Amino acid sequence: MPQNNRVLLAARPQGEPRLDDFRFDVQPVPEPAEGELLLQVVFVSLDPYVRGRMNGGKSYAKTLEIGDVIEGRTVARVLASRNLGFAPGDWVLGRAGWQTHVLSNGEGLRKLDLSVAPATAWLGVLGMPGLTAYAGLLTIGKPRPGETLVVAAATGPVGSAVGQIARIHGTRTVGIAGSEEKRRALVGEFGFDVALNHRSPTFATELAESSPRGIDVYFENVGGHVFRAVLPLLNDFARVPVCGLIAHYNATSEPSSAPDLTAELLGRILRNRLTFRGFIVSDFADQQAAFERDMRRWIAEGRVKYREDIVNGLHACPQALIGLLRGTNFGKLIARLSDG
Amino acid sequence: MPQNNRVLLAARPQGEPRLDDFRFDVQPVPEPAEGELLLQVVFVSLDPYVRGRMNGGKSYAKTLEIGDVIEGRTVARVLASRNLGFAPGDWVLGRAGWQTHVLSNGEGLRKLDLSVAPATAWLGVLGMPGLTAYAGLLTIGKPRPGETLVVAAATGPVGSAVGQIARIHGTRTVGIAGSEEKRRALVGEFGFDVALNHRSPTFATELAESSPRGIDVYFENVGGHVFRAVLPLLNDFARVPVCGLIAHYNATSEPSSAPDLTAELLGRILRNRLTFRGFIVSDFADQQAAFERDMRRWIAEGRVKYREDIVNGLHACPQALIGLLRGTNFGKLIARLSDG
Repeated sequence: MPQNNRVLLAARPQGEPRLDDFRFDVQPVPEPAEGELLLQVVFVSLDPYVRGRMNGGKSYAKTLEIGDVIEGRTVARVLASRNLGFAPGDWVLGRAGWQTHVLSNGEGLRKLDLSVAPATAWLGVLGMPGLTAYAGLLTIGKPRPGETLVVAAATGPVGSAVGQIARIHGTRTVGIAGSEEKRRALVGEFGFDVALNHRSPTFATELAESSPRGIDVYFENVGGHVFRAVLPLLNDFARVPVCGLIAHYNATSEPSSAPDLTAELLGRILRNRLTFRGFIVSDFADQQAAFERDMRRWIAEGRVKYREDIVNGLHACPQALIGLLRGTNFGKLIARLSDG
Repeated sequence: MPQNNRVLLAARPQGEPRLDDFRFDVQPVPEPAEGELLLQVVFVSLDPYVRGRMNGGKSYAKTLEIGDVIEGRTVARVLASRNLGFAPGDWVLGRAGWQTHVLSNGEGLRKLDLSVAPATAWLGVLGMPGLTAYAGLLTIGKPRPGETLVVAAATGPVGSAVGQIARIHGTRTVGIAGSEEKRRALVGEFGFDVALNHRSPTFATELAESSPRGIDVYFENVGGHVFRAVLPLLNDFARVPVCGLIAHYNATSEPSSAPDLTAELLGRILRNRLTFRGFIVSDFADQQAAFERDMRRWIAEGRVKYREDIVNGLHACPQALIGLLRGTNFGKLIARLSDG
């Protein structure tokens, strides 16, 4: 009889999550009832948005309660099924979270054809991060030939797709990452025109020099000092899809020591006729089919490359999420929970 | 022989303009050469954006140089013409600024038919402020029936038009002004559903109570503490056309003592999927014809009302502009420079 190993929210993190904000437990795995199926999770996706779910209060989605299984998209195999839609051995995409086994009635599950793409791709370049990049960039960012796009966290699954999709549209791309190794990969592996390390003491100057004709699209997924460096460089009519703010996710409610940019930001929005628009991936669910068609073609043509960072075992997940928020991973972070 | 009385920029204001930032002078009026015409300015429009032109540095338009005539749209009569397009006695809309007489080659002038609307209306409700309200509200704000719109400086030419156009589109309107007299006029004269005084010590609470279902459109023309009160009330997918920031126009570069809202603002843009978009009226020049057609009909039907605040003489202009930036005017501020 298999057992379900789970990771639960033990405490709401204050600032950066600590290992004791997570709690491991083991539960018996019940038999599927009529209409149900039992899943064994093979891969779970670790994503920055999960940090927001660990806080209390209002967000764009229900936050986790203490004792809940940590949230995450998963690729799983069907172990046993009493549901006519699924057979043992099927691969399915779902949202089982950080646990090894789960019962399902089939709702919200999608059967995957692994001959089309490997299991992990459905959590990254062909999954939620890929659609986030595609829809946010094309719908809000509207990159045009000859324009300049800037994106940070640019070796990550969203940032690397944003840069490569913009390049396909004829846009000059400036990628920002947090290490020299990543910086080199931006140009060598992902085809960015320019790559910068935001930890450089002269980062703001380097960014200005990298964009001598200004910035037309800033795909915002980090906030913080990168945003502050980008703001004065935005051209008239620049577009800023606001997709994430990873630099702020561990922020506490301590007053910021940074200067108040509000008046400066509103003034630039006015004078330069900027557009800032926030979005989350579910706002663009209707683009799923177009996204998968385009992205599969671009991957097949070698025009979109992706990198994965796979850690092993449920026990690795808390530290891996902490590292993700620090930027220590390199590529789409996924945990392998079983051999599938 | 007439003389041209002018008001020039004497010094760049530090903070609020002072009377000695302006300089009066008198010039002889030259005879029009072949192709030219001589205008006598009858009305000059005083608008908040002029404050920005008095600063140095980059704006969305060329700033004034020291010694330049202060900027402003004007309604003038043709005194003499050696240009086949214009005859003495014609009324023309132009941008002569703060001076009584000016030579023109006819470029940028528009002949006005005063049987359609009075001269001053072409500087307000049927002019630049009216188009600003119309295009910014309908193109960016997109008010829908049953939604809630908030606008400040709501007895001004832009704010009053925004509220009334939104109401025509079935939107519930909350107007904000800076005195009790203006507050009463918002409901009694301009048809706002709710009116608030932003100088009330409990303004933020009153705003929250005025919008129990949140705010869907915030037409931003003031910034400052009104913006801070609006931000937490914006609904998912709210739209914020950024049209002006009058509360900031006299700001010096002293560090703000207000708390840094940048992270809060970006976080709300993300979580609530807000759209902020700046614009200036010239971005929407292609809507001029539709605007005039709609606005003339709404005025004729009594669905859009407007109020004018007319001061007399060129010498009144500096103090009137200072008052405009303090909010002491009531309605579209215009100076009458001659009897026409």
